[in-house]
Amino acid sequence: MKKITKLLVANRGEIALRVLRSAKEMGLQTVAIYSEADRNALHVRYADEAVCVGPPASKDSYLRGDKILDVCRQLGVDAIHPGYGFLSENAEFARQVQEAGLIFVGPSPEAMDVMGDKLSAKQAVKAYNIPLVPGLDQAITDVQAAKQIAQQVGFPVLIKASAGGGGKGMRLVHHMDEFEEQMQLAVSEATSAFGDGAVFIEKFVTGPRHIEIQVLGDEHGNIVHLFERECSIQRRHQKVIEEAPSSVLTPELRAEMGRCAVDVARACNYTGAGTVEFLLDDQRNFYFLEMNTRLQVEHPVTEQITGLDLVKEQIKVAQGLPLAFRQEELAIQGHALELRVYAEDPQNNFLPDIGTLTTYVRPQGPGVRVDDGFEQGMDIPIYYDPMIAKLVTFGATRQEAIERMLRAIDEYQITGIETTLGFGRYVLQHPAFVSGNFDTNFIRDHFTAETLKPAVPDATTAKLAAVLTAMLMTEKKAPVAASDAPAASNGSAWKRNRLGVR
Amino acid sequence: MKKITKLLVANRGEIALRVLRSAKEMGLQTVAIYSEADRNALHVRYADEAVCVGPPASKDSYLRGDKILDVCRQLGVDAIHPGYGFLSENAEFARQVQEAGLIFVGPSPEAMDVMGDKLSAKQAVKAYNIPLVPGLDQAITDVQAAKQIAQQVGFPVLIKASAGGGGKGMRLVHHMDEFEEQMQLAVSEATSAFGDGAVFIEKFVTGPRHIEIQVLGDEHGNIVHLFERECSIQRRHQKVIEEAPSSVLTPELRAEMGRCAVDVARACNYTGAGTVEFLLDDQRNFYFLEMNTRLQVEHPVTEQITGLDLVKEQIKVAQGLPLAFRQEELAIQGHALELRVYAEDPQNNFLPDIGTLTTYVRPQGPGVRVDDGFEQGMDIPIYYDPMIAKLVTFGATRQEAIERMLRAIDEYQITGIETTLGFGRYVLQHPAFVSGNFDTNFIRDHFTAETLKPAVPDATTAKLAAVLTAMLMTEKKAPVAASDAPAASNGSAWKRNRLGVR
Repeated sequence: MKKITKLLVANRGEIALRVLRSAKEMGLQTVAIYSEADRNALHVRYADEAVCVGPPASKDSYLRGDKILDVCRQLGVDAIHPGYGFLSENAEFARQVQEAGLIFVGPSPEAMDVMGDKLSAKQAVKAYNIPLVPGLDQAITDVQAAKQIAQQVGFPVLIKASAGGGGKGMRLVHHMDEFEEQMQLAVSEATSAFGDGAVFIEKFVTGPRHIEIQVLGDEHGNIVHLFERECSIQRRHQKVIEEAPSSVLTPELRAEMGRCAVDVARACNYTGAGTVEFLLDDQRNFYFLEMNTRLQVEHPVTEQITGLDLVKEQIKVAQGLPLAFRQEELAIQGHALELRVYAEDPQNNFLPDIGTLTTYVRPQGPGVRVDDGFEQGMDIPIYYDPMIAKLVTFGATRQEAIERMLRAIDEYQITGIETTLGFGRYVLQHPAFVSGNFDTNFIRDHFTAETLKPAVPDATTAKLAAVLTAMLMTEKKAPVAASDAPAASNGSAWKRNRLGVR
Repeated sequence: MKKITKLLVANRGEIALRVLRSAKEMGLQTVAIYSEADRNALHVRYADEAVCVGPPASKDSYLRGDKILDVCRQLGVDAIHPGYGFLSENAEFARQVQEAGLIFVGPSPEAMDVMGDKLSAKQAVKAYNIPLVPGLDQAITDVQAAKQIAQQVGFPVLIKASAGGGGKGMRLVHHMDEFEEQMQLAVSEATSAFGDGAVFIEKFVTGPRHIEIQVLGDEHGNIVHLFERECSIQRRHQKVIEEAPSSVLTPELRAEMGRCAVDVARACNYTGAGTVEFLLDDQRNFYFLEMNTRLQVEHPVTEQITGLDLVKEQIKVAQGLPLAFRQEELAIQGHALELRVYAEDPQNNFLPDIGTLTTYVRPQGPGVRVDDGFEQGMDIPIYYDPMIAKLVTFGATRQEAIERMLRAIDEYQITGIETTLGFGRYVLQHPAFVSGNFDTNFIRDHFTAETLKPAVPDATTAKLAAVLTAMLMTEKKAPVAASDAPAASNGSAWKRNRLGVR
């Protein structure tokens, strides 16, 4: 066994703190790195040791693999956890870590290479009979050949950059007569964004849901899946609300998608924690999209329904330990939801709203978990992803998890910046979400900048206030008196002013 | 069904807030009451309405059932949740609530009467063949008769006040020749403390563990148990650390004790959440002690291993709903621990240490739950129980729950008052606790006021500091430098000062 005694976390924010917590529980010594913008960050104060690796810009600090390896050498670190983002899916960095004689807490660089490219990933899984979105599984540049493919799979089709991500170099084409123009746009966008103009053509899935399966593999050939996460509530092709399990999967479909995900992992000899992403169409056909070769932002919902600590599992696997459980021993317990609390203004196209957390009080109590990296008075730096926290709730049923999330949102006190908390409250009360009848177009279909605008105070509130005033005037000798009006549906759980006479 | 729409919580502190949270999740309107000492308390700000019911002393406020019923009438409340302590086990109050046409969220006054007296409780369960500690199940005053009983059950014996609790009117007698004197002391102590000098004699159980079983009954005759809680870590006969499940119960013993607990509940037609307390001796024989006819302080550990919200279950049962599950559908998932964080000084006999929470930052992250009723800057009032918070951790195994508790204790930042956090850290690392080989004498056997005294800083730390200084001096052009020494085992998880040069 490769024993890890000192772990460096090559990341920042909530995920750095989250990994440090598990490392601490395992009795490991811990090292944090930070940029000059993060000197006072919680992950810096939490680790046993912390080292500044450069100026604020990621490319000068969190992406400087060479500096990070220097830190490891100087402090006697024997393993690196990359978190998500930054260097986590950089096969070259993983290789350098191994060459330096250290353990990279993640899959092999070879698995990262295979799954890092959409086309090589599709080719790798071919032998396993994994359903793919109908289309061409090779990069293409010839417009006439592309048109033929589009004709075969049927419109609407999607033109996607081979090296793409986040919607860049992606074009939706409804008719043949607009195909050529859109393809040229996609190629030029892909070229400028990724330096690679290769695109591929696939069928556009209608009413799609984004369902992903968590997998876990060890170095002894064991691979299990930890069920699905539903990640269809997205803005700008990025997830905002996730849940586990999905309200739309039957046990049979879950088992089938789980088997496919394990096969995808097997196709690249995957070790550690990874995620296989699928699209599910409105006929419940599923199609393999890609594999993320790292811990996902939304991993806590899987932890809550399985009782496993995925970071600890990653660290155990990285030390060469076999998985301690078999597929048939795993079962879903309850339901979990995650709301990403971003420093963004939902009423202004979800644009980042950077600033100081003037007030910052987390919700507490049963069934609530907050993963964050900030405390009251801190600034949200402009250099990085504007996520403040992940608010996770869990309950015996989906309904209880939703009720807890609404309760927790009302308890959360954040002032100084706009956040996605109000947006979360809106989604969680929306009939489409509550019924489970939604897809990745939820925001397009159900949300505008006007949605969250506060309504004019209604007559009931004013009337109630009058009644209460009257009571206070007349009940002079009574031992008690009433106070505030009932909480408004978009108000905080905490009342600042409270009447009460004896 | 008796529909509850507006619930008054007749309590304060963490349990008031905890009940309010569940009520809010269920969509109920909520009313808090408070004494003049609790004007700024969190439960007051959290409820939809809040009413002051009197001066700080409990007898003038939280125990004033008449004022509380006035509040209910004035505000249109239809149900009262009593929490624990205060009026929660007062059958007379429960009767008044019913007579006022309101719902008391708890058992019937009749069940409270039966179980409120130790002797009537023992007589009630007789028909169910529940094992009792050998002794006399009737109050006794005659010394000669008492001596005969003592001879029969064998020394050591315990003389206990019939109306007692908290160790008052309790005497341990090792030999016959000290019996008469001790019995007279017990009778006079019981008379002055409870106005009732009746005592009973029972065998003193050696190496006892306090094991209690959570039960839940509805108005349709269904009663289930929710497994056990181990509550053997006590100071002054009061619990400090609880866990579920117990490390000492076999599945067979668990099933047997569970069956007995259900029978005890059946003996008094119990409805709602209740707890049947047992002593378990060092030969794994168990004896019924008493039934607590209310929610227990330590109920969260049961919630964590069953996934149930006990407050919601109480409220559903109070509305006449049948339980939604059968015994065979219930199973234990994982392991949970609770540490009661008291404003007490463990180095000074656990005496209350009242004051201001100058710093108050809760631990966060996976597997941690904090139930409390305070925030930074608040005072711990002198009038009530000095509990600040219940720190609950849970994990897949007992070991993980312990590791999480240690991690959470290190994250907890409390200054301004002494707390039981350091005591908790000591217990959770003690070989007797870790191995599960402990009983209610843990503190007597393993803890003195000197135990937590900080050791003199050792040579290693000084040496490390010198090495780091040398590194800083020589590595002028290196991009990194090390910082603090590794965390001391009794230190905070958060470092205030951090070195780090680029």
